[in-house]
Amino acid sequence: MKTVFWLAALAAAPAAAAPAPSLQEILDHAPPSDWRTVDPARTLYMELSGGRVVIELAPTFAPNHVANIKALVRAHYFDNAAIVREQDDYVAQWSQPDEAKPLGEATKTLKAEFTRTYAAATPFTPLPDPDTYAAATGFTDGFPAARDPKTRATWLTHCYGMVGAGRDNDADSGGGTELYAVIGQAPRQLDRNVTLVGRVLSGMELLSSLPRGHGDLGFYQGAEKPVAITSVRLAADLPADQRLEIKALRTDSATFAAVVHNRRFRQDAWYKVPAGHIDVCNVAVPVRITGPKA
Amino acid sequence: MKTVFWLAALAAAPAAAAPAPSLQEILDHAPPSDWRTVDPARTLYMELSGGRVVIELAPTFAPNHVANIKALVRAHYFDNAAIVREQDDYVAQWSQPDEAKPLGEATKTLKAEFTRTYAAATPFTPLPDPDTYAAATGFTDGFPAARDPKTRATWLTHCYGMVGAGRDNDADSGGGTELYAVIGQAPRQLDRNVTLVGRVLSGMELLSSLPRGHGDLGFYQGAEKPVAITSVRLAADLPADQRLEIKALRTDSATFAAVVHNRRFRQDAWYKVPAGHIDVCNVAVPVRITGPKA
Repeated sequence: MKTVFWLAALAAAPAAAAPAPSLQEILDHAPPSDWRTVDPARTLYMELSGGRVVIELAPTFAPNHVANIKALVRAHYFDNAAIVREQDDYVAQWSQPDEAKPLGEATKTLKAEFTRTYAAATPFTPLPDPDTYAAATGFTDGFPAARDPKTRATWLTHCYGMVGAGRDNDADSGGGTELYAVIGQAPRQLDRNVTLVGRVLSGMELLSSLPRGHGDLGFYQGAEKPVAITSVRLAADLPADQRLEIKALRTDSATFAAVVHNRRFRQDAWYKVPAGHIDVCNVAVPVRITGPKA
Repeated sequence: MKTVFWLAALAAAPAAAAPAPSLQEILDHAPPSDWRTVDPARTLYMELSGGRVVIELAPTFAPNHVANIKALVRAHYFDNAAIVREQDDYVAQWSQPDEAKPLGEATKTLKAEFTRTYAAATPFTPLPDPDTYAAATGFTDGFPAARDPKTRATWLTHCYGMVGAGRDNDADSGGGTELYAVIGQAPRQLDRNVTLVGRVLSGMELLSSLPRGHGDLGFYQGAEKPVAITSVRLAADLPADQRLEIKALRTDSATFAAVVHNRRFRQDAWYKVPAGHIDVCNVAVPVRITGPKA
């Protein structure tokens, strides 16, 4: 198979070797088994007036928060919610302004899930380059993650598009009623300080291009209007013919390894000096979405 | 002086020592000599309908591009220009749609200024943490920069808000008629591949919150309207009473060292685990702007 041939060629002669496949060619030749179907039971559709934001939840890292968010969604907690904070180069944050809104089977706060202990069997595809913040970075189940081999702790990293559960000063004061997405340079100082619960698979521009808020911390204030969220639904709760078909490249696949290599050593006509390195937050996990529009 | 006392205390007992000064306290106690006046002869005011973007040029790194951009500005080349590209998590780019617009004493293209050789006397304040992309990172003249001690090359890094000169495939095909600003995760793979010419000191949100373009590479297409740039002026060319007073914290000052320490070890009540590290693109150089509005 061509993909295998390429990968063998890459392994034998990395860096500036003869014509390397383009990113598109790599993806076009990926065997179907290198793509996974994103589980509708961990996929949220958040509807804004401007369109739909699709979020994949990360139960591997934050099982309790994910279960709680799903309970909130099933209680329609986020219907008529709003994006209330838009801080430049930092986060877009949303919540339910109606404080009396029922939580359904969810709770307001949960014990923090900042890190998890990993086992030998925990999937992890490491990146080869040093990271400023962690001993090791890479991917677990499609999500950017870091590890500390000394403590055997692993955690999700605050890359562009990652979604977290806001909290107050108490570590256990979050739970998913306030969520945020990273819209700028990865604020990695937040790693291990907030529970990350997933990532935006599509629609990031709907969150990143909103007017910035001018209250403290970028909250909208005065005449600035929060942006309405019509509804948030779990894909699995919709009839099958209303669900999107979402495929994400498996981060433990040979094709993903080829993608990472391609991004470390850009070889198109424009680049003069391939970086030869890559940051975990500069690797976009390829996603293909088809199906009915919102 | 209190600042000196604090710095001595920090040096003696870093990390989680007793009550550390807040970022605001550090800045409030900075001696005036730790601030520099940003030179009006290297400051651009770019006027959009939504407000003003202030850019500091970097002649230390790109003397020829900076001189060329100043010549373009003096020819009013960017008056009635437009932001023509807005690619999510990447760049906002602007240019002059009128191809017949006179260049004044400027030229369309210039030899690339991707890197410079540094000397012993070249100022550089290194950061202590490893960087994914470069052997060393830190600050030179207020700008985020990287170094390779083997080749004695130094270059500016593509952090949020950095401004560069777009080019075609030929390395020497840029010159400053097409400029861009980074609006997302630092695209460090561009380092040493494009000539960076400066950074945005204020008004980033005017560039980062624009609607994303849906043509190739995020160019606006079809019914999507480029965003008008009314004018770009060099601060030094304006009467003194129309100039902003801009102070930037000197990156070779003791106060800046304290700021970096504060950002590496966050100690306010919210943080539970200080990162203990910082990426060059996560250090915001403090800037104070006063004076007449646009």
